[in-house]
Amino acid sequence: MALVVQKYGGTSVGSVERIRNVANRIAKTFDAGNEVVVIVSAMSGETNRLVALAAEVTETPSEREYDVLVSTGEQVTIALLSMCLQSMGYNARSYLGSQIPMVTDKVHARARIKRIGDENIREDLENGTIVIVAGFQGTDGEGNITTLGRGGSDTSAVAVAAAMKADVCEIYTDVDGVYTTDPRMVPEARKIEKISYDEMLEMASLGAKVLQIRSVEFAKKYNVVIHVRSSFHDKPGTLVMKEDQDMETVLVSGVAYNKDEAKISIVGVPDQPGISAQIFTPLSDNDITVDMIIQNISHQGATDLTFTVPKGDCKKAVGIIEKVAEKIKARGVRSDTEISKVSIIGVGMRSHAGVASTMFEALSEEGINIQMISTSEIKVSCIVDAKYTELAVRVLHNAFGLDLPEIEEKF
Amino acid sequence: MALVVQKYGGTSVGSVERIRNVANRIAKTFDAGNEVVVIVSAMSGETNRLVALAAEVTETPSEREYDVLVSTGEQVTIALLSMCLQSMGYNARSYLGSQIPMVTDKVHARARIKRIGDENIREDLENGTIVIVAGFQGTDGEGNITTLGRGGSDTSAVAVAAAMKADVCEIYTDVDGVYTTDPRMVPEARKIEKISYDEMLEMASLGAKVLQIRSVEFAKKYNVVIHVRSSFHDKPGTLVMKEDQDMETVLVSGVAYNKDEAKISIVGVPDQPGISAQIFTPLSDNDITVDMIIQNISHQGATDLTFTVPKGDCKKAVGIIEKVAEKIKARGVRSDTEISKVSIIGVGMRSHAGVASTMFEALSEEGINIQMISTSEIKVSCIVDAKYTELAVRVLHNAFGLDLPEIEEKF
Repeated sequence: MALVVQKYGGTSVGSVERIRNVANRIAKTFDAGNEVVVIVSAMSGETNRLVALAAEVTETPSEREYDVLVSTGEQVTIALLSMCLQSMGYNARSYLGSQIPMVTDKVHARARIKRIGDENIREDLENGTIVIVAGFQGTDGEGNITTLGRGGSDTSAVAVAAAMKADVCEIYTDVDGVYTTDPRMVPEARKIEKISYDEMLEMASLGAKVLQIRSVEFAKKYNVVIHVRSSFHDKPGTLVMKEDQDMETVLVSGVAYNKDEAKISIVGVPDQPGISAQIFTPLSDNDITVDMIIQNISHQGATDLTFTVPKGDCKKAVGIIEKVAEKIKARGVRSDTEISKVSIIGVGMRSHAGVASTMFEALSEEGINIQMISTSEIKVSCIVDAKYTELAVRVLHNAFGLDLPEIEEKF
Repeated sequence: MALVVQKYGGTSVGSVERIRNVANRIAKTFDAGNEVVVIVSAMSGETNRLVALAAEVTETPSEREYDVLVSTGEQVTIALLSMCLQSMGYNARSYLGSQIPMVTDKVHARARIKRIGDENIREDLENGTIVIVAGFQGTDGEGNITTLGRGGSDTSAVAVAAAMKADVCEIYTDVDGVYTTDPRMVPEARKIEKISYDEMLEMASLGAKVLQIRSVEFAKKYNVVIHVRSSFHDKPGTLVMKEDQDMETVLVSGVAYNKDEAKISIVGVPDQPGISAQIFTPLSDNDITVDMIIQNISHQGATDLTFTVPKGDCKKAVGIIEKVAEKIKARGVRSDTEISKVSIIGVGMRSHAGVASTMFEALSEEGINIQMISTSEIKVSCIVDAKYTELAVRVLHNAFGLDLPEIEEKF
């Protein structure tokens, strides 16, 4: 007998009919002799409906009341799903964040989980009850409702799995698992059988949208095995888990891309101590996240500095940087929103030289100019012209043999 | 400075625009120097939407999960109303039933209030915060959500007013107050300035739908002054309060009617001990409420027994009674759904003789036959043919001078 935590997203519970399908899947898992704890999101469209109501009232809702409002979405789903299982003859019981309790800090709308009570759930499981938990929501320990921010239900699920020491945390979604790259872009993309937490974190932060980064961090910290799989069929998906030897034999696990960044350059920056702080402090003061930073070698006491920011913040960032450029007597500021970040990810590259150069060669053979490079232990990212995104992803996917059947890579 | 509890029903908060109107009225009360606690219902239509979702899942939802589901309706309203007041520059804070806490018994879907915590609310009021409470819902003291049943928000409001020792509990509705009779039937009907709890209870149980009976019982028990008034204008409505001398000088305060009952007669019932129990026990076993009962004088060892039941239960009741009639060897069973109950109510009739006979004379002058009579200390009810309902109400309203200006009645 295993303890299985399952999480179903908004699309999977988007109508009463779909809730019935979910109930059938839960029942099947339970009938196979497992203990089952289920985390659900709001029915698709419901959160948007609530957010629109708030927007009709005021542009700047208080975050406490915002949490009171949007948390009703998951509350509706847990009640309907529990009723559905009960009507099928199963014992089921719903839990709000405050009833578990899922204790968070006091930061409304983006709370972080601090502690999870497991007593109530354990008692139910022992009595043969299926436990249905509202994702996304918690309580601040003083009775106020908090929410974990968009996509927080993944994090709720992993946190409950961690607290319960579950055997697996199944995340049901509308894709089959984690792919070597975006299958819409590269039809040869292959579903990955298993992937390490660190690779998954890089994939997520580089644009793959299958799992929330926070949920993977949580899973890594508490060693929770995540099984990302489709809610439309029974085939296994992708296991996200601790690194093992198999994973290390694979040089590159996936190719990711991100079109949501923009590049800003300050040219002719006088090469003096403290200049970097003068440039980046005002950006962080304005909540603008800087991703890649490159400083060219200094020529005759002046240097060029290039960095990337989220595309939506580009205009604001340029405005800030232009003022700074004037003050520090730089020659000018240039920006480019037509860029794309293409990355290869793999724990195998830690112990293998030559991965980065294979990447550069493959891109250069197709005449794709690399504008910026950044590397980590298990990742290499290149900024290229946006129009080359698809080509670059296909070329890299091919260059690292990701279109070949997985079994061959292990030799 | 007074402590004012206000309750707004579903129609008053049925859209964001209406919520804004409610916020303005609350702000006005607060600006006048009062402490304000507000109880709200779900936006009109919302509870029906949720109930329909449950019905789509199963015909027999568990009451615990039903409460989890429907209580989201009020949760949405308190959040939106709080946001609205905050956007107008006021301090406001929402409370769920579990956050107050409004502790009830464990009977889901029709819970009864046991205890109300007032600490959180008092602290807020002292800090100049307007308190917004979700009506209709409570908690069973073990963390489960309970609801008070349809119309429970009136009861929530009176209960909070009682716990806080509020100066007044204002119930906002879509009518101007409590009328001497149904104004749609008698255009001369007059708004009553003040009415005693007992009269209001009789009015409500006899068909007037302005206030929930439970809320009036609660108000009577804790001596809460209720002010029933319109949410569409500022004119005063009707005060429901402890009986005073003014009230006693009025013979009849109102005329009520109820078309929702049916009459059943068993004729030729052998006059033996224990027969009544044989007739009425199977009805109560089937949850059929019997209202008026009349037993005629026995002739030659047999009697006729007539009683009324809710019209919707008539067919079922006749089926039950026909079996009983056969068993006890009664002559037959007859039923009539074309009846109406017309009542006069007034605490003044306690100390004045002749009120009932005035009623009977007034009806007989119009040729209206009285089929059954039942009386209490402050009420006389007559069953008449349904087609005479309007005529009977008008005649009685006129016979007791209810169409005259209130001031004249006091002499």
